[in-house]
Amino acid sequence: MRSVAWDYDRHLLKMIDQRQLPSIFTIAEFTDFRHVATAIQDMYVRGAPAIGAAAAFGMALAARQSQATGREALLRDLEAAAQTLKATRPTAVNLFWAIDRMLRVAAREEIIHADDIRQAILAEAQQLADEDVAINKRMAENGAALVKNGDTILHHCNTGSLATVDWGTALGVVRRANEQGKNIHVLLDETRPALQGARLSAWECEQYNIPYTLIADNAAGHYMRTGQVDICFVGSDRTAANGDVANKIGTYKLAVVAKENGIPFFPVVPTSTVDLSLPSGDDIPIEERDPAEITDVTLFGRPIAPKNAKVGNPAFDVTPHKYVTGIVTEHSVVYPPFEISLRRVVEAEQNKLVKQA
Amino acid sequence: MRSVAWDYDRHLLKMIDQRQLPSIFTIAEFTDFRHVATAIQDMYVRGAPAIGAAAAFGMALAARQSQATGREALLRDLEAAAQTLKATRPTAVNLFWAIDRMLRVAAREEIIHADDIRQAILAEAQQLADEDVAINKRMAENGAALVKNGDTILHHCNTGSLATVDWGTALGVVRRANEQGKNIHVLLDETRPALQGARLSAWECEQYNIPYTLIADNAAGHYMRTGQVDICFVGSDRTAANGDVANKIGTYKLAVVAKENGIPFFPVVPTSTVDLSLPSGDDIPIEERDPAEITDVTLFGRPIAPKNAKVGNPAFDVTPHKYVTGIVTEHSVVYPPFEISLRRVVEAEQNKLVKQA
Repeated sequence: MRSVAWDYDRHLLKMIDQRQLPSIFTIAEFTDFRHVATAIQDMYVRGAPAIGAAAAFGMALAARQSQATGREALLRDLEAAAQTLKATRPTAVNLFWAIDRMLRVAAREEIIHADDIRQAILAEAQQLADEDVAINKRMAENGAALVKNGDTILHHCNTGSLATVDWGTALGVVRRANEQGKNIHVLLDETRPALQGARLSAWECEQYNIPYTLIADNAAGHYMRTGQVDICFVGSDRTAANGDVANKIGTYKLAVVAKENGIPFFPVVPTSTVDLSLPSGDDIPIEERDPAEITDVTLFGRPIAPKNAKVGNPAFDVTPHKYVTGIVTEHSVVYPPFEISLRRVVEAEQNKLVKQA
Repeated sequence: MRSVAWDYDRHLLKMIDQRQLPSIFTIAEFTDFRHVATAIQDMYVRGAPAIGAAAAFGMALAARQSQATGREALLRDLEAAAQTLKATRPTAVNLFWAIDRMLRVAAREEIIHADDIRQAILAEAQQLADEDVAINKRMAENGAALVKNGDTILHHCNTGSLATVDWGTALGVVRRANEQGKNIHVLLDETRPALQGARLSAWECEQYNIPYTLIADNAAGHYMRTGQVDICFVGSDRTAANGDVANKIGTYKLAVVAKENGIPFFPVVPTSTVDLSLPSGDDIPIEERDPAEITDVTLFGRPIAPKNAKVGNPAFDVTPHKYVTGIVTEHSVVYPPFEISLRRVVEAEQNKLVKQA
């Protein structure tokens, strides 16, 4: 089952309702492009490639819904639907890319009749979806070649079948490497606030028998510093011309700490996600979402991870002193070299207590 | 109200039940040191200094509970109680430090009668608690001197009144800087998995009228990279002789990203938390906690943050290309300089589509 698929018998769009996972597997049906827009906004469907396909089929729905009998009237209705669908989420470029692709097909001069336009858009949306699966398989092959036998892979958010039409981007690489018999293990960042790692990636790993351990995002640094991570794969919602990558919040922290520990860090990016019109990532708009995602952890219902999910839960980590500017103590603020300065203030405070006693 | 306090009228230990906050403010009463041990393990009380004080008063309870009439029998009972209390949590050194301090007082040769030992332990526990508050105020003064007018401070976990007997360590610095009228703002990491930032630090900031914004741990990097953080203060559960700091999971990631962005990073550490016997942080034991903290976000009951907490919730961040090893595309894996390699593969894939069309 694809995460986003057209039902040709019933002329409607089917999508897996990702908000219910991992507890309940439901397929939601859409006959109104406005509901598709709401589903994108509320993350019933998420992941840059899946959003692109959902929006493309949303345009096919809009064409069906339009009462227009003439070409111009239909194009006007499609333009309005495009605006509604584009206003859902600002960061992932696939949304805009897919909608514009549908508009270009609709506007082809050789297609004259409204019903032919309707058919052409649906065919183009289907092709986009099919291409997505084919592209993902090629990326999986290219990425899996970077994975060595026995590697532990760190993964952020969900970038699997659910984030695409099928197969996935970064998690598709992991899946392919696993299929190749490479004896891999994947550490899954739970990915607050929306918990796509806990809810979706852990569930997918169970579907595909990929050995995984679910961890708090905070723990990723600890595993990297203590030599327990070999390579990182993440997705991308938009990649600028210079290679700056916009992706799920937390990716940046991960990338910095990976580099600091000499761990290779690879975004897995279909070329449709590259925005050559933006010279750098500073031009990518960053979506600000509902505060309730932070304040109400029960939003998605419980449980938030597969039953008996394997979990790593270290409560503390160690920050090597090279990252510490100074240490505030009750005696004074001490600075490197700490071997000397810390001992001095600890002993000074101990002597003070001895004198008081 | 101190988070940990002895009730002299009723001869029992009172502690704020931190698992109920911010929804309910309850004070739990303890007459059995074994229940104090359970409370430490289950995080009714947490934070290195608060754990130290709780264990010290736990020893005073154990002395009261002992049926021993003679000195040697009481010392044996105290030694057994010490083992129980020490077995609760491995990382914070204050636990061991406080218990050993009580045992040393009990073993003083000049104290002969069992009841005199009982009295001496309670007096020592009270002194330890009073010292904690005094030390925290001195650290707050020393740390606040590092804060400039208008600074935005990044803070991890909870290190306030609740993490100590009173006043706090890192959050005590923030509180003091705020009292000095420095027009500060604090970004609070929510601190998964146990959400001490959301549940406890946000609640404390409201008590003390400290302007705060609650964020997902994943978002801290975004705020740092975009110039929205001036200085970081964190606590420490144990600091090695060389300045390596063991603290709440996620501190390491934060410190690396702070350094990368040239943001000063200061642990606030009473000298009682420095373990000069450990040459480096690699020797500090790291506690592994219950997987349910990860898989069941409803553990602590809802809501998990103060009502109307001010929240920052960016859904994405940008990873500058300098942290990207390579980018996996459906065409091939491309490497820096991405301006050239990315454009080449994007155009190659576009041309392929054009030829197919």
